[in-house]
Amino acid sequence: MSKVEEIQNYLRKNQIDAAFVTTPDNVFYVSGFKSNPHERLLGVMIFKESEPFLICPQMEVPDAKDAGWPYEVIGHQDTENAMEILAQAIKARTGNPSTFAIEKAQLIVERLEALQHSFPEASFVRLDEKINALRVIKDEEELNKLRKAAELADYAIEVGCKEIAEGKTEMEILTAIESAIQEKGCKMSFETMVLSGTKTASPHGKPGARKVEKGDMILFDLGVIYEGYCSDITRTVAFGEPTEAQKEIYHAVLAANSNAIAAVKPGVRAMDLDKIARDTITEAGYGEYFTHRLGHGLGISVHEFPSVTGANDMTMEQGMVFTIEPGIYKSDVTGVRIEDDVVVTKDGVEVLTKFPKELLVL
Amino acid sequence: MSKVEEIQNYLRKNQIDAAFVTTPDNVFYVSGFKSNPHERLLGVMIFKESEPFLICPQMEVPDAKDAGWPYEVIGHQDTENAMEILAQAIKARTGNPSTFAIEKAQLIVERLEALQHSFPEASFVRLDEKINALRVIKDEEELNKLRKAAELADYAIEVGCKEIAEGKTEMEILTAIESAIQEKGCKMSFETMVLSGTKTASPHGKPGARKVEKGDMILFDLGVIYEGYCSDITRTVAFGEPTEAQKEIYHAVLAANSNAIAAVKPGVRAMDLDKIARDTITEAGYGEYFTHRLGHGLGISVHEFPSVTGANDMTMEQGMVFTIEPGIYKSDVTGVRIEDDVVVTKDGVEVLTKFPKELLVL
Repeated sequence: MSKVEEIQNYLRKNQIDAAFVTTPDNVFYVSGFKSNPHERLLGVMIFKESEPFLICPQMEVPDAKDAGWPYEVIGHQDTENAMEILAQAIKARTGNPSTFAIEKAQLIVERLEALQHSFPEASFVRLDEKINALRVIKDEEELNKLRKAAELADYAIEVGCKEIAEGKTEMEILTAIESAIQEKGCKMSFETMVLSGTKTASPHGKPGARKVEKGDMILFDLGVIYEGYCSDITRTVAFGEPTEAQKEIYHAVLAANSNAIAAVKPGVRAMDLDKIARDTITEAGYGEYFTHRLGHGLGISVHEFPSVTGANDMTMEQGMVFTIEPGIYKSDVTGVRIEDDVVVTKDGVEVLTKFPKELLVL
Repeated sequence: MSKVEEIQNYLRKNQIDAAFVTTPDNVFYVSGFKSNPHERLLGVMIFKESEPFLICPQMEVPDAKDAGWPYEVIGHQDTENAMEILAQAIKARTGNPSTFAIEKAQLIVERLEALQHSFPEASFVRLDEKINALRVIKDEEELNKLRKAAELADYAIEVGCKEIAEGKTEMEILTAIESAIQEKGCKMSFETMVLSGTKTASPHGKPGARKVEKGDMILFDLGVIYEGYCSDITRTVAFGEPTEAQKEIYHAVLAANSNAIAAVKPGVRAMDLDKIARDTITEAGYGEYFTHRLGHGLGISVHEFPSVTGANDMTMEQGMVFTIEPGIYKSDVTGVRIEDDVVVTKDGVEVLTKFPKELLVL
């Protein structure tokens, strides 16, 4: 069943007249058309009964058709009121819908207000959970793309490790990685992170002109997009012999990563996985330095459902894909994070990222 | 006056109790803290009377303080309800605000609903126009950053032109450009575009493995971020002697670019500039192939106000910065776009991008 048909079924079952999808990643998911319209309107309107349509900037109409969307594509010019064109198209299809499902975690307030203005009697319910529930389970075609994206991420780490040498800057190492991926015709899925020395202790640090030197640990966090699907990997390596304190932190993180991965299977809850990793790190004496969630879902977006936190009691199911990325950030010793992408299989786990995790000393 | 004080004055003048800023670029503008929190909550709350605060993920609290934000920073953990923490902090500051100004063109519906839940009596007005009005006029410090960003964009085009050679792919040329910019410690402001041959006729085309060949025109569209400020330039060059038809299109676009730039000064309307460029292209016989607006504002964001369209009667004022980027997209001949970044001066225009515009034949 196509994604559009899945949503049509949902609308019929729940007596909702229309669903409005505007997040670029969700538009890609339901239509196959990937585009970032910036502030312009891009959306797919799916009806309980009538034929769906896609609305996009006029100049992208040919691209939307080329992407294989089989239904109508409505273009709007920059000089026109896109929300007004949308409202007219809705009225032409179905008259006066009384219930819309919208992405409340994505749609901006002024677009809701425009719909409320055109359909003053309508109510607006959440579409988010339904579309997340669809997206969170990857089919075999999606998994193959994710496997390939992870393979490219492994390769990028390999390139980064080979590039490490006394006096090279973080930015030079980063450039070598990104060039290698671009040469393969691919793009990174987010801003590549190469951090060295004490900078590793900043979970969201920015690579710069710092030159790597012996005694540093070096942290890579990167991902690659393959046919619209993202990978996300972190490895931390030692440049020169690490200190005992650095090794102790590394092994605590590695144990947390391994223990959490070993527990992945259908039926385990996201919060259970977070707890396993957190307990491992706490027992090693570093609990206060693991300052973020264990992981996040990934697929078309580099951050999507499920969120692997101590507060999420979602049960993992076959086909879910997410990261396992414990970290310890102790600024007087080092930061270490080890991140893998995993998929829940019928009775366990498949680890997509395969770059070795034993402490690499370069 | 600081940006926070400007907003406080606005709140007092308009009897609004609090302003909630959540767009990452607006947060940077008012606080100096640049961060992309993905789906996590990042925001600045500014009050009519009380002291403002910044709210961000717990792990970013040190970075927010390092960025120079002089007021309180409130962190939230992934396991907590950030909107609830926000509501409590608001109540602790001011009790029960009756009016909030929010970014309706940016804030997502569920965050508005969370505020409505915590403050059921409150009304919500737009902050967008005020913050846009502040951001649209650049001060001298901002202009200096934009000048530097434009200089780097010129350099990137120069690198791209030198890289063109028979058999090189679009992606290889792109990689050389991005590496050169990364070596300068900077990042691109959006996905670099290198398009060749008939692909130039797609305004939003994607660079790929196509090899450039003699007879192609090659279109570069790129920008560089310098200290948080973005440039955006397009140049189209000929690889080998162009045909008469290609030259004719090039010169029509160049004339449109030049005529529009010559008309920039305080008092001219955005729509006047669009019309001047559009009339030039229409008179040359290509009106139907200029399928987008003339330009867009730029600064912290690569697309911001003012939008230079035929529908925008905004009057240009000293300190506004925007692009002038007419194009003709004729798939059986070529696409050509020529884009400059300009600033409105006291009595005319300063062109920030300086890479030559006479048709370059390589």
